[in-house]
Amino acid sequence: VAEKVEIGAKVLSENERRAAVIRAKLKEHRIVCLNLVSSPGAGKTTLLEHTLARLNDEIRIALVAGDVQTENDANRLIRAGGRQVQPIVTRGACHLDASMVENALTKIALDRTDLLFIENVGNLVCPSSYDLGEDAKVVIVSVTEGEDKPLKYPGMFRRSSLMIVSKIDLLPHCPCSIDMLRSNALSINGDLEVISVSALTGEGIDQWYGWLRSRVSNARATNS
Amino acid sequence: VAEKVEIGAKVLSENERRAAVIRAKLKEHRIVCLNLVSSPGAGKTTLLEHTLARLNDEIRIALVAGDVQTENDANRLIRAGGRQVQPIVTRGACHLDASMVENALTKIALDRTDLLFIENVGNLVCPSSYDLGEDAKVVIVSVTEGEDKPLKYPGMFRRSSLMIVSKIDLLPHCPCSIDMLRSNALSINGDLEVISVSALTGEGIDQWYGWLRSRVSNARATNS
Repeated sequence: VAEKVEIGAKVLSENERRAAVIRAKLKEHRIVCLNLVSSPGAGKTTLLEHTLARLNDEIRIALVAGDVQTENDANRLIRAGGRQVQPIVTRGACHLDASMVENALTKIALDRTDLLFIENVGNLVCPSSYDLGEDAKVVIVSVTEGEDKPLKYPGMFRRSSLMIVSKIDLLPHCPCSIDMLRSNALSINGDLEVISVSALTGEGIDQWYGWLRSRVSNARATNS
Repeated sequence: VAEKVEIGAKVLSENERRAAVIRAKLKEHRIVCLNLVSSPGAGKTTLLEHTLARLNDEIRIALVAGDVQTENDANRLIRAGGRQVQPIVTRGACHLDASMVENALTKIALDRTDLLFIENVGNLVCPSSYDLGEDAKVVIVSVTEGEDKPLKYPGMFRRSSLMIVSKIDLLPHCPCSIDMLRSNALSINGDLEVISVSALTGEGIDQWYGWLRSRVSNARATNS
């Protein structure tokens, strides 16, 4: 990203055009769409597995799972009960773009979907520049990555609406202060919401489910 | 990366030309150059802090520390005793390229350097495509990232010579098998060497120092 400014701008504006098409289509179907971004291994898929186990019966969830290589994550989400799961293998590309998502959505029944998760490629830089038509970006940071990530990768934190601090069960064993992580993140984006969770112990995860329920019911209310 | 194939190829071939210039210059000065790559927060800087503390008096070390934003890592390396440390702030770019390194090297006394570390931007995708004139890429993966990273980001593991498995002190607390991680990595690159370390407890770290010493003494022997 940002290698050749002029060409980059052209690619991005074509991407924005397609993202706007996706956004309009999702809005028409009253679907909440969340773009999950993080470093590799921060726990996006694990969080989604738990979310499926808990919310699958009350919210109709569809998922698009992007990876540079393998369909492992998509298969995990299917095993976790995902009824509509579409893999995207980017074959080397460092991010999802709107045309990949547009294509994946042709295989999802939008009239039977309330909530669409897009699990992006694990990368704290490039995916921040690509609008996928989502309502919000959710950035996941594990406590093992250290408190300075928002300062070092500000673009991603500036463009996200929610930061999930993951793996808080590891806090006794690693040198990370959640207060410092939160304050670094808020110095980049004062509007960022923050939820801390452990998928292993379940701590904090009800707050995430509550956040999702509220998003979905707001979408129903404002569009009906 | 890989967004526009033709233009990408042009950028990469220009990068390779510059990387070859760097490689020749480093060889002329008998400098071993290692390009450290990993996900954000895998422990590149921490490993380098320990390496400086241990080897600074026997090997003349120079460091180039790249980040999307902030000079935090460079400052940590200076505090850890680094005598020649050059920061590169990419301001949004997702990787270091050879021209950035070429520029940083003008501020390093090559005739007083045995070992040059280039700490790349935290990103398991894009830096794999950019040759920086290094002798070897060293990929660092923390046990908290999970065993599947080599399969999901194969380009990086294919182009690396050594994989350092970091944060092994956390193994009792997280679901990761080093055997599985190693076997996944070797399925991508059968020549990959593997060293497991904990910077916190010091476990395994002497093997890393031994690997470095051997690289430096081989460079002296073959060039003299």
